[in-house]
Amino acid sequence: MVLVLRGELRLTAGKSAVQVAHAAVMLSLAAEHRDPVGFGAWTRQGQKKIALVVPTLTDLEGLERLARGRRIPTVWVEDAGLTEVAPGTRTCLGLGPAPAVELDAVTGQLPLL
Amino acid sequence: MVLVLRGELRLTAGKSAVQVAHAAVMLSLAAEHRDPVGFGAWTRQGQKKIALVVPTLTDLEGLERLARGRRIPTVWVEDAGLTEVAPGTRTCLGLGPAPAVELDAVTGQLPLL
Repeated sequence: MVLVLRGELRLTAGKSAVQVAHAAVMLSLAAEHRDPVGFGAWTRQGQKKIALVVPTLTDLEGLERLARGRRIPTVWVEDAGLTEVAPGTRTCLGLGPAPAVELDAVTGQLPLL
Repeated sequence: MVLVLRGELRLTAGKSAVQVAHAAVMLSLAAEHRDPVGFGAWTRQGQKKIALVVPTLTDLEGLERLARGRRIPTVWVEDAGLTEVAPGTRTCLGLGPAPAVELDAVTGQLPLL
């Protein structure tokens, strides 16, 4: 599972962590319903996650298109906007769970958060 | 849901976010199985999460005792130790989902991550 933050929003560490967690929870619930056996294996193997960052929303949208082309599950996090950003702002794109080779093909060149 | 990081480990932003996400996923899966109706309501209300920090493991252990005393669900995140910390290191304590008044009683005085 890869969680990609939108760097231009300059969120605090805590707010960033919450966006990443929102994405991870949504991807996990979807995966559990779609493929309980595969999801169980992923959790037993340490539910591997990595948090990355791209500069802009346009970068995130490009990643989403690449992921969809490879049939990697994706989810957008839209913030409720109570604190640091406007309501409905897209803050994070989550991808996976998927085989590392698939995720690397889409996000392998991006910097760590 | 409240996710509390162990500050003394001085994890990077990305590593911190992943620990918070691990805790959120584990708490969510447990809540979904224990109380699907309540969990559904929590997700529809924006799956509220907040990331906080305490200095030490001892502080986290104190929080866990307080939470258990109030029957708030808790979960420990133990890192696989592949990068920044030794294997099995407790990095984060997750609490909830639970009513805000319950969580505030345990964690309301702690600083944001």
